Amino acid sequence: MSDNFYKVQDKKYLMFNAKGFVEKSLEEIKSIVRDNKVVSACSGGVDSTTVTALVHKAIGQNLLAVFIDDGLRREGEPEFVVNILKSLGINTRFVDAKKEFLDTLKGKTDAEDKRKAFRDKFYKTLGRVLKEEGIKYLAQGTIAADIKETVQGIKTQHNVLEQIGIDPETYGYNIIEPLKELYKPEVRMVARELELPKEISERMPFPGPALSIRVLGEVTSEKIDILKKATKIVEEETKGIEAFQRFAVLHSDKATGIKQGKRLYGNIITVRVVKSRDAITAKAMEIPYEMLNKISKKITEEIPSVVRCLYDITDKPPATIEFE
Amino acid sequence: MSDNFYKVQDKKYLMFNAKGFVEKSLEEIKSIVRDNKVVSACSGGVDSTTVTALVHKAIGQNLLAVFIDDGLRREGEPEFVVNILKSLGINTRFVDAKKEFLDTLKGKTDAEDKRKAFRDKFYKTLGRVLKEEGIKYLAQGTIAADIKETVQGIKTQHNVLEQIGIDPETYGYNIIEPLKELYKPEVRMVARELELPKEISERMPFPGPALSIRVLGEVTSEKIDILKKATKIVEEETKGIEAFQRFAVLHSDKATGIKQGKRLYGNIITVRVVKSRDAITAKAMEIPYEMLNKISKKITEEIPSVVRCLYDITDKPPATIEFE
Repeated sequence: MSDNFYKVQDKKYLMFNAKGFVEKSLEEIKSIVRDNKVVSACSGGVDSTTVTALVHKAIGQNLLAVFIDDGLRREGEPEFVVNILKSLGINTRFVDAKKEFLDTLKGKTDAEDKRKAFRDKFYKTLGRVLKEEGIKYLAQGTIAADIKETVQGIKTQHNVLEQIGIDPETYGYNIIEPLKELYKPEVRMVARELELPKEISERMPFPGPALSIRVLGEVTSEKIDILKKATKIVEEETKGIEAFQRFAVLHSDKATGIKQGKRLYGNIITVRVVKSRDAITAKAMEIPYEMLNKISKKITEEIPSVVRCLYDITDKPPATIEFE
Repeated sequence: MSDNFYKVQDKKYLMFNAKGFVEKSLEEIKSIVRDNKVVSACSGGVDSTTVTALVHKAIGQNLLAVFIDDGLRREGEPEFVVNILKSLGINTRFVDAKKEFLDTLKGKTDAEDKRKAFRDKFYKTLGRVLKEEGIKYLAQGTIAADIKETVQGIKTQHNVLEQIGIDPETYGYNIIEPLKELYKPEVRMVARELELPKEISERMPFPGPALSIRVLGEVTSEKIDILKKATKIVEEETKGIEAFQRFAVLHSDKATGIKQGKRLYGNIITVRVVKSRDAITAKAMEIPYEMLNKISKKITEEIPSVVRCLYDITDKPPATIEFE
């Protein structure tokens, strides 16, 4: 993704002063937290990594970054995130919760039920970690779009406790959300100001509940494995294109196909590549058919159960970027 | 569709002598049927209408065409077919079996179960008509591709009784299948030779079980209504393109979207447009994005429950043309 992808001709973002924002935030964080310890749950996304780095800059070794491995991350992602955090000199704890997340998602097919189950398990896991560590402060990467969409009732963001009527006190911690008035392009400007590696500052957005909402219907470990492979192919094959998000979705519906001359009632993968500045609206990208053909061939050849690839041609609105 | 769409540079089809085929078939049909009456179940597709016209040419008023309205046809289709048959001077009986077909499909979600349920209901309905009419001969539009694919186990064709091990005798009738050695381009040449209207001879193929296999998962009348609207939009918007088939599919999976500023967990429609000569292989067409955008907009605007449109980018193989 090129450096100036977000250097758009937009007054609002050009007027944003990332340096001033960082200075002001460091003061605020210090004045709220004082000499207490803080946990920051870092998924490796732009938002949570930026807030983690910001709090780290404010309070140094008093910050503990926590990476919860929910088993729903892209291939190689857990190692990537932990390495980045270590390279930034941030205290990091890795929590293996793969089995617990799969268990909690079992049998759930409705999009909102899945998001809620994920969020619940996420906060329970995080609450356990906070208790074990004896830490009462939690930093979160909530941004303006999360709040806006939660208020409008479009989706339940797992990191906007207050908006969805959950009292942070019931989980036993205090929330710090320094990015909550920023939009995505501004968060990236802050990430650049903090000199985070490009792999983070220019990273495409990734949903809180991770791959669980890209497996339509019930989530199983087999389905997650299929989706990981498809995701990797989509990311690799479209890397020459400047997109806001590029990903694969595994349907619960099946379709007929032919593999090795025999009928196979197999899986369907949808490819989604969108342009967007702030995730509030998005445009389905008109990527070349040559590229689509290559993706379709690779996915159906390399993943035995997949017989069909679709390309999402819907803008947001009326669709959302993600499927669930 | 242009006149010479099937006048491909293919020796096999260029060597086919439609005039000779018709002459030979008329003789054969007369010698088999003699002065018995024959029923031809005519769906309005190229195959069944061609065989109906062929048998009519052979035995005239001894043929009774039967149109079974299964409630799964495209918008305006039952009226269209009955009018064509009447205009050709063919005795026609219209059978309203809409409720029976919906009932038999109720609760069935597997592709093959649905095809079997459809086929069973189709033959039971046809058997009842034959009994009521006291007719023992049945003409069918089976073509070579049906037999080839049934033998390979790719799908169960509802009009290839013997291949799938159903003894025609258990249904109580004798089968006449004059087209069973022809491929689609040859059937069209026969249709032209018989001077059928272009709306028939150049008509795109339509599956035996009709829209039931384009509603993924369980079929309901509400879903059929949604699919009929989407189908009409796809057909209208792509009519400038020379395609072998163009259609819409309604998924059972749902996806999130936004309508009138509110979250809607709504329906997904896939658009499929393929090039093919004989249905044995097919190529997903690279139709212009401008057209895809217009289709996506129309479908999501005109059908309240639909929030997302996908375009099928898979060739056959590894996909089939239809989804079930």
